[in-house]
Amino acid sequence: MEFYGDLQSGNCMKVKLTADLLQVPYTWIPVDIMNGGSRTPEFLRLNPHGQVPVVRLEDGETLAQSNAIIAWLARGSGLLPDDPVRQAKVLEWLFWEQYSHEPYVAVCRFHMHYEGKPKEMRDPVRVERGEAALDAMESHLSTASWMAGDGFTIADIALYAYTHLADEGGFDLDPRPSIRQWINACRNALGNGHMDPSGS
Amino acid sequence: MEFYGDLQSGNCMKVKLTADLLQVPYTWIPVDIMNGGSRTPEFLRLNPHGQVPVVRLEDGETLAQSNAIIAWLARGSGLLPDDPVRQAKVLEWLFWEQYSHEPYVAVCRFHMHYEGKPKEMRDPVRVERGEAALDAMESHLSTASWMAGDGFTIADIALYAYTHLADEGGFDLDPRPSIRQWINACRNALGNGHMDPSGS
Repeated sequence: MEFYGDLQSGNCMKVKLTADLLQVPYTWIPVDIMNGGSRTPEFLRLNPHGQVPVVRLEDGETLAQSNAIIAWLARGSGLLPDDPVRQAKVLEWLFWEQYSHEPYVAVCRFHMHYEGKPKEMRDPVRVERGEAALDAMESHLSTASWMAGDGFTIADIALYAYTHLADEGGFDLDPRPSIRQWINACRNALGNGHMDPSGS
Repeated sequence: MEFYGDLQSGNCMKVKLTADLLQVPYTWIPVDIMNGGSRTPEFLRLNPHGQVPVVRLEDGETLAQSNAIIAWLARGSGLLPDDPVRQAKVLEWLFWEQYSHEPYVAVCRFHMHYEGKPKEMRDPVRVERGEAALDAMESHLSTASWMAGDGFTIADIALYAYTHLADEGGFDLDPRPSIRQWINACRNALGNGHMDPSGS
């Protein structure tokens, strides 16, 4: 199995973290998204939408969309409960992450971390909605240990990816103690082998 | 089971279409989203994110996020294949819909249809990305009958919801014959009982 991605991208990191935790063997193929690597004819044959990450299976079939990939990797494991309602709660957070969190928290980070824009140049609408997403997580985690249900799941991995890098997008986690505690719990769940490629 | 939603919202319509097709019994509870109905303390207890649709189960458990709800409703039916890779391809389109289609095609419709803005006042970035999303669908459907795999699934229901109303957001389906053919095929798959509440 081949994973195509950029390890600085939280969406790609989700796939690596899930596969590593489940000890799924793969070959990582770096895609340099800042230099057109996801726009080459070769890459667009893997994913016409030009987005990383992409998984290519042995038979040539491809899968895209980080949260679809981690749900597929996690099937049958404790990271995705079999119980239909518990599984639906995990999916609920995965969709929330892609709709209400990633477009704000991750995109602000992209502008600062990849494009080198100063914090003051961030889009105010994205900042406001990113703060709201982090507030929603803080509120949830003030009465729950994990994002979905009573154990560590791919809902935590999906939200950990960009939340633990929120400072690189100009967001402050200091006034959000429940998120900080949960980040530490995620790190423990992910194991000591988890070397964060961003160094943060 | 209770469904809370606004039938003019495509996200809510997905849930109704899926439940009706699968003949799942429910009570529909209208939420007037334009008049604060999703911001009342009562509603925020159902979904702290203040978004419709929401499902409340007999035991009081709630589920949010339209695509998580339809995946839950469709489990074990032909609308969501059991085969892991085929199921992952369905989820891939569901996540694509929420990330690359809904924020543009549906939000332009919201501005025109709900808020009464003229077509010319649409956000140019959302217009450009909405056109790109529809182009991506047209390209996919020019060589495939359905969005995921070889049969009608919840990927089609999720994308049908706002695509068949794209004109209400100022998007033109006339130059997209594969989408128009697929919309007709979706209508047939949804059955003659499908009365479109928007009348279009």
